[in-house]
Amino acid sequence: MLSKEDFQFSLEMKVRDYECDMQGIVNNSVYQNYMEHTRHEFIQTMGLNFAKLCEEDIIVVVARIEIAFKNSLVSNDTFVSSVKVKKEGIKYIFEQAIFNKKNAQVIATGKVTTVARIGGKLMHAEVIDKAIQCLNKK
Amino acid sequence: MLSKEDFQFSLEMKVRDYECDMQGIVNNSVYQNYMEHTRHEFIQTMGLNFAKLCEEDIIVVVARIEIAFKNSLVSNDTFVSSVKVKKEGIKYIFEQAIFNKKNAQVIATGKVTTVARIGGKLMHAEVIDKAIQCLNKK
Amino acid sequence: MLSKEDFQFSLEMKVRDYECDMQGIVNNSVYQNYMEHTRHEFIQTMGLNFAKLCEEDIIVVVARIEIAFKNSLVSNDTFVSSVKVKKEGIKYIFEQAIFNKKNAQVIATGKVTTVARIGGKLMHAEVIDKAIQCLNKK
Amino acid sequence: MLSKEDFQFSLEMKVRDYECDMQGIVNNSVYQNYMEHTRHEFIQTMGLNFAKLCEEDIIVVVARIEIAFKNSLVSNDTFVSSVKVKKEGIKYIFEQAIFNKKNAQVIATGKVTTVARIGGKLMHAEVIDKAIQCLNKK
Repeated sequence: MLSKEDFQFSLEMKVRDYECDMQGIVNNSVYQNYMEHTRHEFIQTMGLNFAKLCEEDIIVVVARIEIAFKNSLVSNDTFVSSVKVKKEGIKYIFEQAIFNKKNAQVIATGKVTTVARIGGKLMHAEVIDKAIQCLNKK
Repeated sequence: MLSKEDFQFSLEMKVRDYECDMQGIVNNSVYQNYMEHTRHEFIQTMGLNFAKLCEEDIIVVVARIEIAFKNSLVSNDTFVSSVKVKKEGIKYIFEQAIFNKKNAQVIATGKVTTVARIGGKLMHAEVIDKAIQCLNKK
Repeated sequence: MLSKEDFQFSLEMKVRDYECDMQGIVNNSVYQNYMEHTRHEFIQTMGLNFAKLCEEDIIVVVARIEIAFKNSLVSNDTFVSSVKVKKEGIKYIFEQAIFNKKNAQVIATGKVTTVARIGGKLMHAEVIDKAIQCLNKK
Repeated sequence: MLSKEDFQFSLEMKVRDYECDMQGIVNNSVYQNYMEHTRHEFIQTMGLNFAKLCEEDIIVVVARIEIAFKNSLVSNDTFVSSVKVKKEGIKYIFEQAIFNKKNAQVIATGKVTTVARIGGKLMHAEVIDKAIQCLNKK
């Protein structure tokens, strides 16, 4: 069964009531917010910074997102948001999952495909490649 | 090339500045909001209503979402959000796209897989099936 | 009784379901979103543009916001968001209100105090002052 | 100078990039989200729960919100969100402030006026009054 041990980085967060919709559960789109925040925190632990990459004209863009919704989070739930990254061709692929902290139940899984645009062109970003290599050596 | 004529329903909206993130473009998660709103408006034209379905204990849940991001919307852009629906087995699948109104450029395409839960069980929802049949006869 | 005729600009919008919280009503913070969008659309009709002002190094910042919540909007409601502007000393004050379109009921009223920062200093922004004068001549 | 010691409850949070707008700062409306989350966490420490109050038909509604914006939070900032509550007549008034964690700088202050509606009528909510008394004895 999928657990946070299958990932490279995890972040604990708590549901905020304004994130719940009229069904009383966290709105589907909010998981994309949770996952984005987790990715940005993750790449910082890799020594990368979204804003700094931009300054060096390395724009990392999300090309594709796939999320499978398995269960719901409700008001007051605490959850663990996990992520790992791999490279496939020119793509940096983030695999992500969100777990209910209480019972480790899988809430959602996601696959986020990103590409680096340097000087307007899609290409390998050496600084990111090295950071991923470092990560995998750990 | 994909256009709104390939869909069953379209809605025109305008970017609101608070939807843009620090890259100056509409944040990826917001497209999920746009698509949800479009689906809910669409099913109303089919004579269905999200809140009423709930009252009849027919809960339509999103099981899976896939979005491909092709281009960006920025402040002041007007866009067209289009949708069509089909049934595959027990699944109701919404195919969606967002177009820049100015030049008909595809901004994002999405596939949203939903299922109906009646009395807690996943099953065919007759009222939805009929609504889809009506739609296809038009 | 307050009505949209008491304002200089009005915009019609419809509640989107993801804006509703678990009480089934539009979340309080969303009115601030509605009001921001209305202000930005309003100043465009005055020949001003948020992004362009920035380019000229005129940063308009919100210093204070006051909102009184009178009634709620729910799923499917259409509403009218109205605004007018006046200058008091160095401040540009936007008075705003949101009305239920169905019955003209006041949903919320707001007072948003903004100031212009030019080259880092709070000061009168001539281009804005002129735009307000034009508006009042109409 | 205002500090978190002037309040009854504080919560530490970190800015999430999707909360920043195209000016590169946390959007004004997001502070209302932060403050709501802080209030809901606060009342739980008082032994009160938003959802449970609802079940007992005690609806606490926000009647008025005033926020003064002093400084901005940006990507990567950690902040402290503080709150205290007092009763004035039939009103429960929450005074709130948000501080940059790095330097204790005041980012925003807020005053949120709420009232309790029991069985549709605005009235004193004994369970809330007792919780506030307990808090003040500590």
